[in-house]
Amino acid sequence: MTEVRIIPIAGVGEIVPGDDLALLIATAAGDALQDDDVVVVTQKVVSKAEGRLVPVEDRASVIASESVRVLRRSQEGMVISETRHGFICANAGVDASNIDGDKIALLPVDPDASARRIRARIKHVAGVDVAIVISDTFGRAWRLGQTDVAIGVAGIEPFVDYRGSFDAQGREMTATRIAVADELSGAAELVMGKVDKVCAAIVRGAPVHHGRGAAIELVRPPGDDFFR
Amino acid sequence: MTEVRIIPIAGVGEIVPGDDLALLIATAAGDALQDDDVVVVTQKVVSKAEGRLVPVEDRASVIASESVRVLRRSQEGMVISETRHGFICANAGVDASNIDGDKIALLPVDPDASARRIRARIKHVAGVDVAIVISDTFGRAWRLGQTDVAIGVAGIEPFVDYRGSFDAQGREMTATRIAVADELSGAAELVMGKVDKVCAAIVRGAPVHHGRGAAIELVRPPGDDFFR
Repeated sequence: MTEVRIIPIAGVGEIVPGDDLALLIATAAGDALQDDDVVVVTQKVVSKAEGRLVPVEDRASVIASESVRVLRRSQEGMVISETRHGFICANAGVDASNIDGDKIALLPVDPDASARRIRARIKHVAGVDVAIVISDTFGRAWRLGQTDVAIGVAGIEPFVDYRGSFDAQGREMTATRIAVADELSGAAELVMGKVDKVCAAIVRGAPVHHGRGAAIELVRPPGDDFFR
Repeated sequence: MTEVRIIPIAGVGEIVPGDDLALLIATAAGDALQDDDVVVVTQKVVSKAEGRLVPVEDRASVIASESVRVLRRSQEGMVISETRHGFICANAGVDASNIDGDKIALLPVDPDASARRIRARIKHVAGVDVAIVISDTFGRAWRLGQTDVAIGVAGIEPFVDYRGSFDAQGREMTATRIAVADELSGAAELVMGKVDKVCAAIVRGAPVHHGRGAAIELVRPPGDDFFR
């Protein structure tokens, strides 16, 4: 195993609807981008570039319309709901922080498609073959605090699958399938902060498998989920 | 924000009960360890060094005795249960992979105390002031695959708390409290693999807050938990 590096991409600047986010990231990264890097991009700038903004006054109705099902509702009015994509998170991923003016951001309509577009566009403008992970900050059952997880993936498989392989003692590891796209998202969060304006980071050297994976594969199918 | 580096500590070797794990890690790391590094150590080697091994034949009864409550039971016999510490995970954290002979490993009795001991011992033998995170591989509700999370912490706070701080637009970020110890664990997993024998890694440059934090703070109190 060799070292993994997590390199913030500073200077992307404020994103507004219609911005060419991939070009702005590639320009800000400059020579830093290399083939086989994973570029983690926060959901917020993807949503802003795609114009997924609505007036803050509409927040409650927007959360309702972005949710296909409400799992729980807190006394303070926070809901934990399932989005159209199948993600389970607070307020259907509708977020109010770091958005200009009186706007709130919704999740991208299809974050895997967003990731594929950003990947293709970076290849076009910068000539490098990078994978893309779109990350968002989600809470969890049973554990306090949030971590960044993947809601969009392009160019890698979201899992590193050890099922059927053998451990150092020759024992088959039947259950282990690491959600590497989520670990990459959390690792990238370490250089992003929440107050600074770092919206993208390079993860270099991680043991990812190149492929046509998608973050939607990370959604546990309802029939396999004890906690829906 | 500056770069974060994740550096595997190779060559710790096979751990047996009674081993001085901190000394072995410090020796394997050699000059690589620096003040303010976070050293992530896998639960398995901590459990082995502490002799938390039982015969594999006792697996079912051991899982039952390590669980204070069973949340769900799968048709294949896997349980999702709450451990004495309050962690909710598969089979009470009892694991069969990568253990020599016919033994399985239980979680440390008090992983935060284990982390504090390893931290103090590394300071003693190597003269460096590092933080320790003990990581384990847990599944999650709603999302497939596993990620590494923290079950023991010493020398840092497990959260980076943005509650009460202001985002780039001057809006208060009321809910955001990043479970940085979990993100550090997942990041370290990227250099550990599951088949290689890398049981420890250095995370350098992460925005951690030094303090007397403990992983037990990551356990969501039952009254605050919608999904117990």
